[in-house]
Amino acid sequence: MGEKILVIGAVAAGTKAAAKIKRENPKAQIVVVTRDEYISYAGCGLPYYIGGVIEEKKELVVKTPEDFKLLTGIDVLTKHEALKIHKEAKTVEVEDMTTGEIKEYKYDKLVIATGASPFIPPIEGRDLKGVFSVRTVNDALAIRELVDQGAVKKAVVVGGGFIGLEVAENLHEKNIEVSIVELISHILPPFDEEIALYAQNYMADKGVNIYTGEKVLSLEGKDGRVSKVITDKREIAADLVIMSVGVRPNTELAKEIGLELGPTGAIRVNEYMETSERDIYAVGDCAENMNLITGQPAWYPMGSTANKMGRVAGINIANEEKDSLKGVLGTTIVKLFKLNAGKTGLSERDARKAGFEVETALVPANDRAHYYPGYREIITKLVVDKKTHKILGAQVIGEGVVDKPMDIIATAITFGAKVEDLEKLDLAYAPPFSTAMASTILAANVLRNKLTGRVQGINPVELKNRLHEVQIVDVRDEGSFMVGTIPGAVNIPSGELYMRAHALDKHKEIVLVCKIGKNAYLSYLKLKELGFENVKILEGGTNAYPYEKE
Amino acid sequence: MGEKILVIGAVAAGTKAAAKIKRENPKAQIVVVTRDEYISYAGCGLPYYIGGVIEEKKELVVKTPEDFKLLTGIDVLTKHEALKIHKEAKTVEVEDMTTGEIKEYKYDKLVIATGASPFIPPIEGRDLKGVFSVRTVNDALAIRELVDQGAVKKAVVVGGGFIGLEVAENLHEKNIEVSIVELISHILPPFDEEIALYAQNYMADKGVNIYTGEKVLSLEGKDGRVSKVITDKREIAADLVIMSVGVRPNTELAKEIGLELGPTGAIRVNEYMETSERDIYAVGDCAENMNLITGQPAWYPMGSTANKMGRVAGINIANEEKDSLKGVLGTTIVKLFKLNAGKTGLSERDARKAGFEVETALVPANDRAHYYPGYREIITKLVVDKKTHKILGAQVIGEGVVDKPMDIIATAITFGAKVEDLEKLDLAYAPPFSTAMASTILAANVLRNKLTGRVQGINPVELKNRLHEVQIVDVRDEGSFMVGTIPGAVNIPSGELYMRAHALDKHKEIVLVCKIGKNAYLSYLKLKELGFENVKILEGGTNAYPYEKE
Ligand SMILES: Cc1cc2nc3c(=O)[nH]c(=O)nc-3n(C[C@H](O)[C@H](O)[C@H](O)COP(=O)(O)OP(=O)(O)OC[C@H]3O[C@@H](n4cnc5c(N)ncnc54)[C@H](O)[C@@H]3O)c2cc1C
Ligand SMILES: Cc1cc2nc3c(=O)[nH]c(=O)nc-3n(C[C@H](O)[C@H](O)[C@H](O)COP(=O)(O)OP(=O)(O)OC[C@H]3O[C@@H](n4cnc5c(N)ncnc54)[C@H](O)[C@@H]3O)c2cc1C
Ligand SMILES: CC(C)(COP(=O)(O)OP(=O)(O)OC[C@H]1O[C@@H](n2cnc3c(N)ncnc32)[C@H](O)[C@@H]1OP(=O)(O)O)[C@@H](O)C(=O)NCCC(=O)NCCS
Ligand SMILES: CC(C)(COP(=O)(O)OP(=O)(O)OC[C@H]1O[C@@H](n2cnc3c(N)ncnc32)[C@H](O)[C@@H]1OP(=O)(O)O)[C@@H](O)C(=O)NCCC(=O)NCCS
Ligand SMILES: [Ca+2]
Ligand SMILES: [Ca+2]
Repeated sequence: MGEKILVIGAVAAGTKAAAKIKRENPKAQIVVVTRDEYISYAGCGLPYYIGGVIEEKKELVVKTPEDFKLLTGIDVLTKHEALKIHKEAKTVEVEDMTTGEIKEYKYDKLVIATGASPFIPPIEGRDLKGVFSVRTVNDALAIRELVDQGAVKKAVVVGGGFIGLEVAENLHEKNIEVSIVELISHILPPFDEEIALYAQNYMADKGVNIYTGEKVLSLEGKDGRVSKVITDKREIAADLVIMSVGVRPNTELAKEIGLELGPTGAIRVNEYMETSERDIYAVGDCAENMNLITGQPAWYPMGSTANKMGRVAGINIANEEKDSLKGVLGTTIVKLFKLNAGKTGLSERDARKAGFEVETALVPANDRAHYYPGYREIITKLVVDKKTHKILGAQVIGEGVVDKPMDIIATAITFGAKVEDLEKLDLAYAPPFSTAMASTILAANVLRNKLTGRVQGINPVELKNRLHEVQIVDVRDEGSFMVGTIPGAVNIPSGELYMRAHALDKHKEIVLVCKIGKNAYLSYLKLKELGFENVKILEGGTNAYPYEKE
Repeated sequence: MGEKILVIGAVAAGTKAAAKIKRENPKAQIVVVTRDEYISYAGCGLPYYIGGVIEEKKELVVKTPEDFKLLTGIDVLTKHEALKIHKEAKTVEVEDMTTGEIKEYKYDKLVIATGASPFIPPIEGRDLKGVFSVRTVNDALAIRELVDQGAVKKAVVVGGGFIGLEVAENLHEKNIEVSIVELISHILPPFDEEIALYAQNYMADKGVNIYTGEKVLSLEGKDGRVSKVITDKREIAADLVIMSVGVRPNTELAKEIGLELGPTGAIRVNEYMETSERDIYAVGDCAENMNLITGQPAWYPMGSTANKMGRVAGINIANEEKDSLKGVLGTTIVKLFKLNAGKTGLSERDARKAGFEVETALVPANDRAHYYPGYREIITKLVVDKKTHKILGAQVIGEGVVDKPMDIIATAITFGAKVEDLEKLDLAYAPPFSTAMASTILAANVLRNKLTGRVQGINPVELKNRLHEVQIVDVRDEGSFMVGTIPGAVNIPSGELYMRAHALDKHKEIVLVCKIGKNAYLSYLKLKELGFENVKILEGGTNAYPYEKE
């Protein structure tokens, strides 16, 4: 009843676990320690605090230790670092960082919620003033102070992941010239290339400088303050550098006592959040997840998951009853100016890597009725297993509503939905909210057309690599064609296709191009009727083609 | 190959089926007939056209017969009424309404897509000028013309279903005094009372007069134009009356040839859209649906479903392959000013009627992070089967994003999700889009707390009927309490509960009240600790309590 519970870490997972245990068992004696001075804060809000979208620090910090105590009755010791776990003695050595005093805390059950920390590559200049990562409240306070002082004219964000991009947006909105340097060939590394490049073009159009396929070698400074970022291709002036190349799970305490780590390097836990050691639980960013699709360990350090893990652990710690979190999908979403981009499940690349034979579709559509004011286009990419037709993943991007289709598809994947199931969902329709055939349903229709051989498609990535091997026919009107088309395309408006098709070489692969893929599909059916066999449509049309047009 | 296909009806289901058949089989000889002069129009957009949100008629009409012909190669004969099917001869008698000429059309396969028509109760005055229903383009044109002429000062909408409400909103936005008369005790009849009344209060606050539990007896006029609506309780002046008490499937043609109708009165079809007669299909509003939850016939005349039915029939008609639509959930959504209200699956009332032993939860929550500008509250009502924990239905209402949770839950229900599954969904989270524990997940948490006996709740409808049997304790601060609370409540702020609980009668049922239910839940846990046993929380708090406060 009066069990002693020690929780290490007090942001999302630790506080959630502690609060839940106390609700389940008011007699539990819970102590939470954290080396930070802030607890229960919105890491996810830090970029918006930097940009002033979130005005006040107090909005960022969901609960102070006093609030938390008042609400839950639990003591959180801030500026207390856990140094060492003694698993046989069931104690933890904790240092009071203010006094330097070290104390032993006894536990019956231990919750490790030590989270993750930014990985800072070991380059020269990383310790200069003006170089930050964005993980803690103090990081955000310091960056915002610099920004508000007007001390920042040029900023470089190292790393084009979602945190780096959110920070870039917020700095740009403060009239700072922002450059992003990303090692791989596009920003948003977990996304497939055509989606990521769409976002990249959008950010570039907004005036953010983006350098991809480029490696930061060192940082240079003047008087101890950063002044330059040196990459393998250029030098970029900077009075603020944001290091945002990824995070690593904080596993030192766990490793020391031999807790099993998973292949991702995070602490291995089962669906009950139990580690390899009895009475020790791990939750949040320090712990590993199971990918629901592959059944393989994965690591998705997300606040949404951290809260769920914390709650599940809380129930299990306080009760005989077992609650479980069987796995996650790696669902993520990011807002970039007015563009939204989301991903759930496996990318095409990851799906292939995992050994699936995949089929994909890339389908632009309106988020709301085209006659309802304010509708916007979104592009859905679906990835399915060719054999079972099961949805493996999706990415959605556009200025329209993206979080809704993400969540629909994430929910569907969770239950092993096939593309045929997606087509038949009874989704909510009225003009202010959706279209009669919702974008997700339409994307499923198109994908099934591909699976059943009703149409052949070519993805922009593939087309770009094969521009010179195919006959590209733009079936839009001449005006649209003149404004910009795929390099090498000839123009035969769809209305003239029956008449002018004879000019095409039946023996050479034909790629039909329109604005979003629909007109190309209808033209494809015409060419089929005329006996053409080697025809494909450019999926997503010119709208989703992220490469140079002519 | 060159099969003759005749389609009767040319709005959503008929055009969709025809277009799909032609794509599947370009040799098919398809004729579509409709008695209307407009085809392929957005019935769903009519209220917005009346209000001018949709400015142009051409936006309403998705495709003219010429467009449709150009796009699909299919002829649509407008102003052609199908009079009689001869199923043995496989012909249909069609009257050219312009010339009066009657012709026989042969078919190999027939698609009935005759839709639905407004039910106009047989009351006196229904034929007066100024009395309309809202179903066709011509209805909307005529109403808008009157409105734009400034000829309408006062309008009465008979029927508080979603179409009536949308029209009421649009008329109100045109500075017309609008009254709604609804026969049952609340607007939005398919919704549960507490949700419907929430919408009703909202509409009333916006200045719409709402008379529920009231029956329209007759309409009176002057010089052939309507001037008054007479109900069983009052007379309401009106120069425009919208009759919107429901629609009925157009089944005359089907009935005449003995096609089986289902218990709902619509044409019975199987999952392939086949009627009881070989080679005759029925799709859209004239046909019946299967409810995926009850497995029982139901009738949901929705544009979203009509399109899906049309496409499924199209595939089946043109191919050996069979596509199917196994059923729907009756998902609906409506925007009322800035309020959004949605429903999927069974209401609590319907679930009980269907014989389920149900548990429900009513949970307000923010749609986005509370520190992100523009977040709004939404209220989720979940209905589950107590035995299996399967989700049976949900209703969501509020100024925040409602269509997303609706679609998440509709998707989950489709796959037989339990409340435990909802809790664990890996939904997309970033501050501009959601909260770390999304509203749907939170609602599932609360519902499971009820199912496992962690908390007892009382729904506002029940509390209102038992106000005098219980001790009501408002645990909010005194300021909030003074502004308005549940009739009969005493105020014990939660912080003082440990100290002041002894003043409560342990033997009389206690209902704890706060703003949304969360503080009441935490207070409930305190009282439990103090040995109180007969305690409940008011679900949804004062925010979701739609009755009079004091
Ligand atoms: C800029 C940014 C944006 C983000 N955006 C999103 C988003 O949009 N959506 C989303 O889902 N997630 C987002 N996240 C991730 C989310 O913030 C994390 O997943 C979440 O904070 C993890 O919570 P946690 O409690 O597991 O770990 P952490 O937040 O890392 O907290 C761990 C705590 O443990 C303490 N600690 C570590 N070791 C010790 C020790 N030895 N002794 C004492 N204390 C210790 C740390 O000081 C820290 O306070 C974002 C994160 C950042 C930084
Ligand atoms: C105001 C309003 C708002 C709506 N809002 C929504 C919404 O938000 N979401 C949603 O999903 N749905 C909504 N709907 C419903 C949606 O419009 C219908 O479900 C859809 O139009 C049904 O299409 P249908 O083709 O089956 O039938 P209908 O649209 O009814 O078309 C049937 C056609 O067949 C013709 N016809 C009938 N009998 C004959 C005959 N004997 N010979 C020749 N022609 C014949 C009719 O004249 C008509 O043109 C709304 C409807 C209205 C009126
Ligand atoms: C807030 C925090 C301290 C957790 O504490 P918590 O007390 O569990 O807080 P919550 O508000 O989530 O939930 C409180 C309880 O009230 C319940 N509740 C909430 N609204 C309710 C309502 N309307 N009616 C009834 N119960 C309600 C919840 O179900 C929960 O109870 P349960 O878990 O026993 O089911 C922790 O999540 C945190 O620090 N969050 C901020 C940091 C963070 O999440 N960062 C990462 C993302 S940026
Ligand atoms: C529009 C209408 C005539 C149907 O005609 P349609 O030709 O099927 O029209 P759509 O635009 O829906 O679809 C065209 C085809 O292009 C495909 N398509 C659409 N976008 C595509 C893209 N980006 N890439 C590839 N294919 C695409 C679709 O999958 C569909 O093909 P399929 O059914 O063979 O898979 C009919 O739905 C209608 O009249 N609607 C308006 C009325 C209405 O729906 N009212 C009720 C609601 S208010
Ligand atoms: Ca318990
Ligand atoms: Ca075919």
